[in-house]
Amino acid sequence: MRALIDGKAKPVGAFGRLETLALQIGLIRGTLAPAPPRPHAIVFAGDHGLTAEGVTAYPSAVTREVARLVLKGRAGISVCVRAAGMDVTLVDAGLLAPLEPAPMLTNARIGPGTANSRRGPAMTTAERNAALRCGSDLARTLCSRSRTGGFDTLVLGEIGIGNTSAAALLAHAVTGIALDVLVGPGAGLRAAGLAHKRTVIAETFARTPTRDAQTALAEFAGFEMVMLTGAILGAAEQQALVVIDGFIATACAATACALRPTARDYCVFAHSSAEPGHQALLQTLGAEPLLDLGLRLGEGTGAALAIPLIRVATAMLSDMANLSDVIGGGDQA
Amino acid sequence: MRALIDGKAKPVGAFGRLETLALQIGLIRGTLAPAPPRPHAIVFAGDHGLTAEGVTAYPSAVTREVARLVLKGRAGISVCVRAAGMDVTLVDAGLLAPLEPAPMLTNARIGPGTANSRRGPAMTTAERNAALRCGSDLARTLCSRSRTGGFDTLVLGEIGIGNTSAAALLAHAVTGIALDVLVGPGAGLRAAGLAHKRTVIAETFARTPTRDAQTALAEFAGFEMVMLTGAILGAAEQQALVVIDGFIATACAATACALRPTARDYCVFAHSSAEPGHQALLQTLGAEPLLDLGLRLGEGTGAALAIPLIRVATAMLSDMANLSDVIGGGDQA
Repeated sequence: MRALIDGKAKPVGAFGRLETLALQIGLIRGTLAPAPPRPHAIVFAGDHGLTAEGVTAYPSAVTREVARLVLKGRAGISVCVRAAGMDVTLVDAGLLAPLEPAPMLTNARIGPGTANSRRGPAMTTAERNAALRCGSDLARTLCSRSRTGGFDTLVLGEIGIGNTSAAALLAHAVTGIALDVLVGPGAGLRAAGLAHKRTVIAETFARTPTRDAQTALAEFAGFEMVMLTGAILGAAEQQALVVIDGFIATACAATACALRPTARDYCVFAHSSAEPGHQALLQTLGAEPLLDLGLRLGEGTGAALAIPLIRVATAMLSDMANLSDVIGGGDQA
Repeated sequence: MRALIDGKAKPVGAFGRLETLALQIGLIRGTLAPAPPRPHAIVFAGDHGLTAEGVTAYPSAVTREVARLVLKGRAGISVCVRAAGMDVTLVDAGLLAPLEPAPMLTNARIGPGTANSRRGPAMTTAERNAALRCGSDLARTLCSRSRTGGFDTLVLGEIGIGNTSAAALLAHAVTGIALDVLVGPGAGLRAAGLAHKRTVIAETFARTPTRDAQTALAEFAGFEMVMLTGAILGAAEQQALVVIDGFIATACAATACALRPTARDYCVFAHSSAEPGHQALLQTLGAEPLLDLGLRLGEGTGAALAIPLIRVATAMLSDMANLSDVIGGGDQA
């Protein structure tokens, strides 16, 4: 595969980061000439009991309003998926209140938001297991290799007021990165709010300082995050490419890799977000993100923006001429 | 325009770099709800007499071979334009030998390659003027605002063995950045070759140390570079967005801005290339490139990869809900 890429009609390495992406895609697909990617986006939405502690710039009600914008096709992710030529499934993993039924909505409500993790576990182990299974089943079904038109590339995003806090706790538990590094302003906390968020998160972790991924999911995560973690595992099982969005999705990826290290091979880290803890988390995973646009929107927006790069990397393998087709050489000097 | 972007259903600034891109697009289009971009790519190809001095890793003959791959749809840029859903025009600005006619080929040959600029001017002032006019006319025609289906977004790239040398000379003349910063390995020179390239380029500039953009174009540039510079000016005149590729195209953009400073408003700098001088050149232009993928392929590849981001930034203005549509708020925390 490496020789194929080096032998394309360009100086060795001239396609930069897209060459390592092409290598990963080629190895996953197991062919030197992969077909164009068939991408699909899943956005998991859920509410967080921890918001009762005043750790967010917006109230929990906003989670549902943003989810409704996705159903209306007017959210940030809507713009991104249309531009990328793919569809999006919105999963209600556990909003405070359910949404009206809609064609692109999957109802997979584990409960009306998680419990307040500062006071006790965010969810029961039964709820965690149900959410993991649900995410995994959904991804396996969408990416079924036996189904005609099954997807081979899954963009994963989330919506959940409070989930940068939950992600900091989860990431700390599974990677050991200091909480001070992982806690950031989220959607827009200022200095005083951020200091309070740090205190609450430190107290929450101190309540049950686990390093176990399964335990940490139940103690700290949101339903949307557990389901996203399950979706990574399910997609990897079907040998689909998993496109990871920002800080929260990356915390879920770190958790999925802790549960099953081979899942890492299927993950593409789409972008480096403006949330300061994201950098450290990406480094721990050995991830070299494709984009660095200062995004901090979530919803899978950054992951969707990476789809065109995945298309080009795939087409480089299949459609680009080889150096041997060109007498003697490369392209420019 | 800034208020519109801040008022979209997301935390202020959450779309990061795409918000400044949206601002630029909105201002150019002069509307709060611009239609989707209509992009087209032009790749200018030409040969360089300076290659006689041994400053390149590949022989001049490779320019024409890569140009032929574009016509066959199998070059790097072919893969990128297909993925971006646009067409490409290849312009023979002055290859050593002409290509067979082809539907996507425009024959605009100024001559069979430039003269060796170490010994004398690369071209006459008449040739320079013809190339500038030709590039400008082509861009103005493609982007004519009176024509139905005219393009509003122009991706500009180049093919030309020897043109990192020509670009270093041109950029030095118009920006004053040190030649040591601007001279790099191009398509793959090693240490000894690079040292020789530095010597040749320093001697070439010393022959006629101009700071005048028009003079520098005739003394040092390639036909493809003069035409690309003209195309920037012509597209800006038609108020089209000009998507600038890597080191060579950026040197042309610096020259275009020296000739007509208002052209800068229409330029989007697509990516930060692996050619070391590109960073300094981008800084001088106050450019914040969209992508940083370590590309060093030329042909307009990096510029074409930026088209999906331009689509999303445009759609953010037109299609994304406003905060006022959402009771109270933003998206996540």
